[in-house]
Amino acid sequence: MDCSSEDGKPVRVVCVTSGGTTVPLEQRCVRYIDNFSSGNRGATSTEYFVKAGYAVIFLNRRGTCQPYCRNLPGDILDCFEVTENLSMQVGDGFLLKLPFTSIFEYLQILRMISTSMHNLGAQGMFYLAAAVSDFYVPWESMVEHKIQSASGPLDMRLAPVPKMLSTLRKDWAPNAFCISFKVAIFMHM
Amino acid sequence: MDCSSEDGKPVRVVCVTSGGTTVPLEQRCVRYIDNFSSGNRGATSTEYFVKAGYAVIFLNRRGTCQPYCRNLPGDILDCFEVTENLSMQVGDGFLLKLPFTSIFEYLQILRMISTSMHNLGAQGMFYLAAAVSDFYVPWESMVEHKIQSASGPLDMRLAPVPKMLSTLRKDWAPNAFCISFKVAIFMHM
Repeated sequence: MDCSSEDGKPVRVVCVTSGGTTVPLEQRCVRYIDNFSSGNRGATSTEYFVKAGYAVIFLNRRGTCQPYCRNLPGDILDCFEVTENLSMQVGDGFLLKLPFTSIFEYLQILRMISTSMHNLGAQGMFYLAAAVSDFYVPWESMVEHKIQSASGPLDMRLAPVPKMLSTLRKDWAPNAFCISFKVAIFMHM
Repeated sequence: MDCSSEDGKPVRVVCVTSGGTTVPLEQRCVRYIDNFSSGNRGATSTEYFVKAGYAVIFLNRRGTCQPYCRNLPGDILDCFEVTENLSMQVGDGFLLKLPFTSIFEYLQILRMISTSMHNLGAQGMFYLAAAVSDFYVPWESMVEHKIQSASGPLDMRLAPVPKMLSTLRKDWAPNAFCISFKVAIFMHM
């Protein structure tokens, strides 16, 4: 990853993750478990990072809140044709938007980004605002076709998603600065 | 429900359901099971019913495909303010759009619509294109807060959703004409 600007100063790069991941319940997926997240925190923070001169990689759930059009439907920009590439210059910063839907896509793209950012060292930052699934159905134990309805109950066993945050910090980009969020649980509301 | 037009002829009314229902997994819902459905069949059929002179009640999943703007993001119309009410005259027909998200909302609104259409008799029609959840978590067995992640697997027991189609046909609107769809399963693709 090239990490110097035109004036030779190192460019600070931040990867912002945003929105919820899905967990498919069938290989030819009709049903999936979703995590509710508007993506507002990630989209808003992205605008501020760009304003502060960062090059931002915005890894976002399809259809969620987008920077610079937070009050519009998330996928409104899909109505316009992108003539060059997914990267764009915004003010003094750069913005690269990469979409995901499932937990599998999310983790694979995150690994690609973080290993690419490995050599940025402390110039790299991760701002992990995505609502990542805690449980999933492993591919080999997933039924191929739509689960059939029946008269009895349906029992499902979900496996815990491996904790990739520690892998990111230890192996993928050990010198990057990491910020992560835990969902707020309101016990007395 | 008033069911005659200005010239005294009875108005044919169709309730079109469209898009997938969700099943919340927690009472203060963070996670939910979703059924994939673009809502294209329901939105397209609605346009044709209106063109044929029907008064259409379009019971649709929030954010899915909408009649007359099928190539735009589903919730683009939320950006505009509705000045009067949710019902509108379109060409020679009428269109009332009612949104749902969860299976609970869907079934409650469907019951209200169908009992209101009871006295239309054979002038009433149901065109059930929504992808309705087959399994759900009953409210009393649902955890209140977000399911906590843990080291072990998560076992979930889902109850079958009561088959409301037969209740609709027998009790709610026994003389209405019903069209329903079953999801296509491709066994040899």
